[in-house]
Amino acid sequence: MAYKELARNKAFDGHVVKYEHASTELSCNMKFNVFLPKESQHGAVPAIYFLSGLTCTEDNFIQKSGALAEAAKHGVALIAPDTSPRGAGIEGEDDSWDFGTGAGFYLDATDPKWAKHYRMYSYITRELPALVNKELPIDGTKVSIMGHSMGGHGALTIYLKNATNYKTVSAFSPIANPVNCPWGQKAFSNYLGVDDKEAWKEYDTVELLKKLDNVKVHALVDVGTSDNFLERELKIDTLKETVAAQGQQWTIRYQDGYDHSYFFISTFIADHIQHHAQYLKQ
Amino acid sequence: MAYKELARNKAFDGHVVKYEHASTELSCNMKFNVFLPKESQHGAVPAIYFLSGLTCTEDNFIQKSGALAEAAKHGVALIAPDTSPRGAGIEGEDDSWDFGTGAGFYLDATDPKWAKHYRMYSYITRELPALVNKELPIDGTKVSIMGHSMGGHGALTIYLKNATNYKTVSAFSPIANPVNCPWGQKAFSNYLGVDDKEAWKEYDTVELLKKLDNVKVHALVDVGTSDNFLERELKIDTLKETVAAQGQQWTIRYQDGYDHSYFFISTFIADHIQHHAQYLKQ
Repeated sequence: MAYKELARNKAFDGHVVKYEHASTELSCNMKFNVFLPKESQHGAVPAIYFLSGLTCTEDNFIQKSGALAEAAKHGVALIAPDTSPRGAGIEGEDDSWDFGTGAGFYLDATDPKWAKHYRMYSYITRELPALVNKELPIDGTKVSIMGHSMGGHGALTIYLKNATNYKTVSAFSPIANPVNCPWGQKAFSNYLGVDDKEAWKEYDTVELLKKLDNVKVHALVDVGTSDNFLERELKIDTLKETVAAQGQQWTIRYQDGYDHSYFFISTFIADHIQHHAQYLKQ
Repeated sequence: MAYKELARNKAFDGHVVKYEHASTELSCNMKFNVFLPKESQHGAVPAIYFLSGLTCTEDNFIQKSGALAEAAKHGVALIAPDTSPRGAGIEGEDDSWDFGTGAGFYLDATDPKWAKHYRMYSYITRELPALVNKELPIDGTKVSIMGHSMGGHGALTIYLKNATNYKTVSAFSPIANPVNCPWGQKAFSNYLGVDDKEAWKEYDTVELLKKLDNVKVHALVDVGTSDNFLERELKIDTLKETVAAQGQQWTIRYQDGYDHSYFFISTFIADHIQHHAQYLKQ
């Protein structure tokens, strides 16, 4: 199965289309949603990848964020992948909501137990773009990336490691320093093993920022001050300090009273789409 | 339990709040969501009731419609109730997706088996407004009503039977003539019995319109031309013909290529909120 269309719904003069394909990186079938604006009927359009958080599928962002209205205004496609391989059949894969299924953490596992299937980093950076650039009216030279929570971590780390491939990046409530928080430590110790902590740093926004000597990058980050995970898991203060220490100019906004939910995302998604559109049109 | 708050999320400078209360009309506990715009911190605000379709709960509209952005712009509250009593424990209640739980059809059942609990008409028109007008910063003199599918049927019939209580009405894909479609016939024959067809007409938009001699009302109705239920269940052509025959001036729009989903609703929800806001501000 190269890829097949599972569903198509008209929305904002364009279409939301759900696809399924056999992923070679993840050794399983994967689904993803794409919003194709009406402009895509006449040629390739820019696109924003959105990486979702723990427990999500390809559906949450497309159904709940309200992003389609603003993406349609700018003629930009949205690409919403799943958050992990599905049905890999690995023992313990479905035991936790914050590890395994629904929690791929956008890395390539090296622990032998997980290494065959849990390769979301290579899936998001190589396999999925190759597929959509070939099969869909997406301009692969004009793409950017954003995400929420675990997906905010994914978007920021993937951007920092592949800045020439993406026009810009933004994140809602990202897990900014996973090597120093419970969610990240649980995931990394299982997927990457406990011995090689340098390998962990390759998937950590704060650590990657420290290595970015003389390279200026820009990002938009929003987080709610009433987010239950703010101090324990997200480490946005550490991110902000690192950005400042490295002389980077990021926009990091603490939004008063907002939490970790899609109600928060939907409130600021138009801002984020506008941020991306500005870079994608250059 | 008078009522209690189950959850509160900040959104668009206001809040989405989920409440639970013991309903006397339905003889069970019921949940509903309210979006309270920031203006509600300083006084009572106008409100739009949204009645959902088959299988929905109080969550679908609030999470998927994208309505909050536009409601916040106009300082209007949204009230999203559930679609049936819950846990009534009636035999057969959970056997179908289009009857019983999740399918109250916004009527007061008269069949003895259903009559104690299935009283969504009285719940929506009397009990819920009394509760929110008393407990929340809602201006009960400035409310309107809208809905989708079964909820479009609910909104239109409730408006036609209580036009002085609501400033206006709108509907997405309403079941416009339930006495003549399979969904309606299944529901009405069970809830109202098979003998008294005049009783059925009291909950049928087309039939209620025929009785509206010399009273002019206005409604906005959107339906997708690719809606799988358009001909068999919705009967929008019959509605349009009846509206014309009665000399009413309704706006009934066939939206090309759209289906029955929330992707359709989200595309046109801003239009509907603007329609309501115009009447609510008068």
